[in-house]
Amino acid sequence: MAVLRMGIIGMGNMGSDHAKKLIRGIVPEVELTAVSEMDETRLEASKAYLPESVGLFASAESLMDSGLCDAVLIATPHYDHPRLAMLAFDKGLHVLCEKPAGVYTKQVREMNEKAQDSGVVFGMMFNQRTNPIYRKMHELVHSGELGAVKRVNWIITDWYRTQAYYDSGSWRATWAGEGGGVLINQCPHNIDLLQWICGMPAQVRAFCHEGKWHHIEVEDDVTAYMEFPNGATGVFITTTGDLPGTNRFEITLEMGKLVCENNTLTLHKLSQNEREYCFTSKDGFAKPEVDVSAVPAEGDNSQHMGVIASFAKAVLNGEPLIAGGEEGIRSLELSNAMHLSSWLGETVELPIDEELYLQELNKRIAGSNRKETEAVLFDTEGSFGS
Amino acid sequence: MAVLRMGIIGMGNMGSDHAKKLIRGIVPEVELTAVSEMDETRLEASKAYLPESVGLFASAESLMDSGLCDAVLIATPHYDHPRLAMLAFDKGLHVLCEKPAGVYTKQVREMNEKAQDSGVVFGMMFNQRTNPIYRKMHELVHSGELGAVKRVNWIITDWYRTQAYYDSGSWRATWAGEGGGVLINQCPHNIDLLQWICGMPAQVRAFCHEGKWHHIEVEDDVTAYMEFPNGATGVFITTTGDLPGTNRFEITLEMGKLVCENNTLTLHKLSQNEREYCFTSKDGFAKPEVDVSAVPAEGDNSQHMGVIASFAKAVLNGEPLIAGGEEGIRSLELSNAMHLSSWLGETVELPIDEELYLQELNKRIAGSNRKETEAVLFDTEGSFGS
Repeated sequence: MAVLRMGIIGMGNMGSDHAKKLIRGIVPEVELTAVSEMDETRLEASKAYLPESVGLFASAESLMDSGLCDAVLIATPHYDHPRLAMLAFDKGLHVLCEKPAGVYTKQVREMNEKAQDSGVVFGMMFNQRTNPIYRKMHELVHSGELGAVKRVNWIITDWYRTQAYYDSGSWRATWAGEGGGVLINQCPHNIDLLQWICGMPAQVRAFCHEGKWHHIEVEDDVTAYMEFPNGATGVFITTTGDLPGTNRFEITLEMGKLVCENNTLTLHKLSQNEREYCFTSKDGFAKPEVDVSAVPAEGDNSQHMGVIASFAKAVLNGEPLIAGGEEGIRSLELSNAMHLSSWLGETVELPIDEELYLQELNKRIAGSNRKETEAVLFDTEGSFGS
Repeated sequence: MAVLRMGIIGMGNMGSDHAKKLIRGIVPEVELTAVSEMDETRLEASKAYLPESVGLFASAESLMDSGLCDAVLIATPHYDHPRLAMLAFDKGLHVLCEKPAGVYTKQVREMNEKAQDSGVVFGMMFNQRTNPIYRKMHELVHSGELGAVKRVNWIITDWYRTQAYYDSGSWRATWAGEGGGVLINQCPHNIDLLQWICGMPAQVRAFCHEGKWHHIEVEDDVTAYMEFPNGATGVFITTTGDLPGTNRFEITLEMGKLVCENNTLTLHKLSQNEREYCFTSKDGFAKPEVDVSAVPAEGDNSQHMGVIASFAKAVLNGEPLIAGGEEGIRSLELSNAMHLSSWLGETVELPIDEELYLQELNKRIAGSNRKETEAVLFDTEGSFGS
């Protein structure tokens, strides 16, 4: 197999964006061979720009059974991710899944087990992991040269969406259709990066506000306070209602501080470990020397196409994935923990009670109002944050 | 009265610093006429640099009764602020009180009533209100031109202190001696500015960690989540354990965002109110124009001496104070709310239950360990943040 034959399931905003790039040959390891879309208008729209060689299917199952694909990229609404992935595993197809892996961890756990049993390659579309700045942060924190993490503050409020965005799909921003709001739709990347770089918290107390800035039933404003196993604390603050938003990710460690803002990573490095200095200095107000520098973060930020290329190389040559399927469960568990804490009005410990989460989610789904609205496709260029 | 004759009560770090500046004539409206200090070594140390004309007293009461002063500046440990202020009011002396006004609001409420009855001038040493940047933030938020506040994030972790600092006084960082840690000693200014600029929150959920970074019994690490009466939310994050710390005060409003960091105030101003834009834009991912500019914040940052000068002018000419005594109760109530929320492990509403706060504080005082330590004076130059 010299080239991976890939099918895209779901031709909404993301799926059609991926398709347009793949047919331009941006990922030489991949050939787009089929797409599927349940919505007739959308499928018709795809036909207009796709080469004739690309198979068009009205259902994911018929695409999978067509024999045109060795792998599928799942870009449907979130609830369908686990079901479709498991269907593909059963048919021996490799799977690259858009974020989030699913809506609740119980199901995603099952999905991972199934992938393992079937022996196919299962990757997650955590495209922000290709960003050289986040890769550098991961490297610096994990190298240990800066000592233990003490505090994490991520203000990631630059996910602005208008009401028109929410009105563009009947499933959008509903409990029944998405299983959450900004946490489940916009933030999976950030939550993945947070846990990838800083590890999973031990407990979370979150404050989610539903329909605060938009006419929607799910959360569009979240402040989460976290405590990590080593005692470090942190906040994660997000919304789709702030303009202009902020994306400032600050990590304080024993040997200094990393600040990622405006696409620049700044390292404030101490000449001495603060934990030692605190107990050896004779002066109450003194501080050790600090060296401040911009950290070069080299390499292409290949984003979605980079993840697709690495997925293809994993299938074709056994190279490592940027994010394996098992990574999807961690970010989802952290996001579920934020929801659950806010719903219960109390601190929750991780791992969370998955059954309780599902019960609480199902209560909300039962009361959910699927909107009467017409599906709209937006140009998503430049809208995925950084 | 052309010049205000002022006595300083308490010649610790702050009191001696004020005295040194006043004898250099930095505030022409004020003559330092007396100081009092219970600690003999400290009183002796003051003698070395004070002019012979300045009366030296071993107790606040003897200073007040000396007839040398029209006003007193109270710079003792916090617990004594209300008692000494009320003693001064009884003797008809004007009072300028170091922050915090006291340790619990119940007492500070009594103190304010007494000041009002006696008719003297009662001012609070909120010296950071003289900072032109904070004055500008106050002006911009209160002018209404930026619309309502939506979010407040203040990361104020640049209050670093070593263990030597905490070991420098037996009262330091004890429940019995100070009634709290970073909230009551380092942060009263920030908490005052927060409430001055953004108003008082309606409820608070705080996470205070006691002795997390130092061998002390009080909190040295705090994350507080706040909700304001109009629905705005915010975090206030502080510690004496981070190096290098951060001082970044961000306010998001309907018409944009104010960010105060590194002594620079940046305004991100929208061409249109976000609340209108959200519901009128036809595009899901669009944003209105943003104009980003550094806001000139002019004027001297006269700090403590500016507050002393304005206090003197209030006494001498009836000019307005920078912060009246009644302002002390608001910042203290907010700080008390953070303590109480953390102690109870739940969200508290403001105004808080003052009796409950006092009960909880008294429990901690009862178990407090006053340290065996020798009093030390540090050079505090440049240590009061910005």
